[in-house]
Amino acid sequence: MLNDTIKTILSHRSIRKFTDESLSDEQIKLLVESAQMASTSSFIQAYTIIGVEDHSKKTKLSELAGNQPYVETNGHFFVFCADLYRHRVGSELEETNVEDSLESTEKFMVSLIDASLAAQNAAIAAESMGLGICYIGGLRNDITKVSELLNLPDYVIPLFGLAVGVPATKSDQKPRLPIENVYYKDAYPSNKDTVTEGLHHYNDIISDYYHKRTSGKRSDRWTEQVSQMLSQPSRPDMKDFVNKKGFMKS
Amino acid sequence: MLNDTIKTILSHRSIRKFTDESLSDEQIKLLVESAQMASTSSFIQAYTIIGVEDHSKKTKLSELAGNQPYVETNGHFFVFCADLYRHRVGSELEETNVEDSLESTEKFMVSLIDASLAAQNAAIAAESMGLGICYIGGLRNDITKVSELLNLPDYVIPLFGLAVGVPATKSDQKPRLPIENVYYKDAYPSNKDTVTEGLHHYNDIISDYYHKRTSGKRSDRWTEQVSQMLSQPSRPDMKDFVNKKGFMKS
Repeated sequence: MLNDTIKTILSHRSIRKFTDESLSDEQIKLLVESAQMASTSSFIQAYTIIGVEDHSKKTKLSELAGNQPYVETNGHFFVFCADLYRHRVGSELEETNVEDSLESTEKFMVSLIDASLAAQNAAIAAESMGLGICYIGGLRNDITKVSELLNLPDYVIPLFGLAVGVPATKSDQKPRLPIENVYYKDAYPSNKDTVTEGLHHYNDIISDYYHKRTSGKRSDRWTEQVSQMLSQPSRPDMKDFVNKKGFMKS
Repeated sequence: MLNDTIKTILSHRSIRKFTDESLSDEQIKLLVESAQMASTSSFIQAYTIIGVEDHSKKTKLSELAGNQPYVETNGHFFVFCADLYRHRVGSELEETNVEDSLESTEKFMVSLIDASLAAQNAAIAAESMGLGICYIGGLRNDITKVSELLNLPDYVIPLFGLAVGVPATKSDQKPRLPIENVYYKDAYPSNKDTVTEGLHHYNDIISDYYHKRTSGKRSDRWTEQVSQMLSQPSRPDMKDFVNKKGFMKS
């Protein structure tokens, strides 16, 4: 049952160092076409992909994302954007008022989901070609400047980058949540203890993973890492930015 | 270059009629494991998957989704949920305050993106096994009732369903936006005419597609279909629901 596609999916690890070998135009086209074949809500196709080739722009994006060198050095750098501008322009052709709909929370969700499904198709397609990938959420660190750099109009916002290229390092797979803590039959557990016990179990797995990799120097718990990350709200300007761009007003 | 994975991706069509042959436990496990191997923002794993097997629940979900029979009759029905509850419980173990972060627009986006990347991995894995899939955004038609039916606590919201099963019909692939209208180099086009011309071109393609399929009876434009859909805001209660569940307050 483990066909090549599933083997590719199960072998995923994020790659944070690429050679500078560029993807061919044919490869880029195949990745975009793969992205486009993902499901899309009511055929709305609510995303745009920017391929950043200009080197100074890549350097700038790398800085804006918190100095991540793999944003600058890779085989190709994609930025996936939620896009309802196309629909705004289309509505003018049809002389139809669509603002209320475009500005709803529902359509914000639709555009995020659409763009993410498309991106993951591109990611799997790239990995199936032997390339490595890394998602770059860090583009949201300074989302206003990223948006300006890419000339994004209203009703378009950058969501994340996808760096693709020939891997220059191999990285490990960290153990995911045990399946019984992420997949439930018929309903969410009604007893909070079920969730707590699952977290203790997962903490043991993650601590053990770090312990073995660092010869006992580290033994982080997952809840410790995640709680520390969440103790400071990041990107507090997000709602303002999203609203200013026309999304999620109602 | 067209390996089996890319062939699978490019052959996608949504399947809206399945046989009643159930997926095996092994298949379900493989799909969930595939979902879990998707990238996740800072290893946050902000989603939960509910596998609905109880037949009366499937019937109810089918009704709530607008009487879609393929929600009831399929090989397996998954509901993908944004989940930050696990992190809320984890933060109690660590005696850390994470509410401000959990309730931010940024983390709402992270959980939607995380859940969607995971879902698309499951979708591709299923299709690589010869199964068909259909995303069910219709679960958001009455998201409060779906949430209650699945016993979802605060900080967990259902995003969409994924029906998987043995296809009982074959469906067509509708032509996507031409690549030059969805993929831009270095920046979004500064001239609105570029977008407008692209839409006219795409309208011709879509009209032609319907014309040929219906022996001339239909010739819908894409902008016509999309504008009509968007002329009435759907799911106007979404923001309230999302806020009540603890998401996107700031």
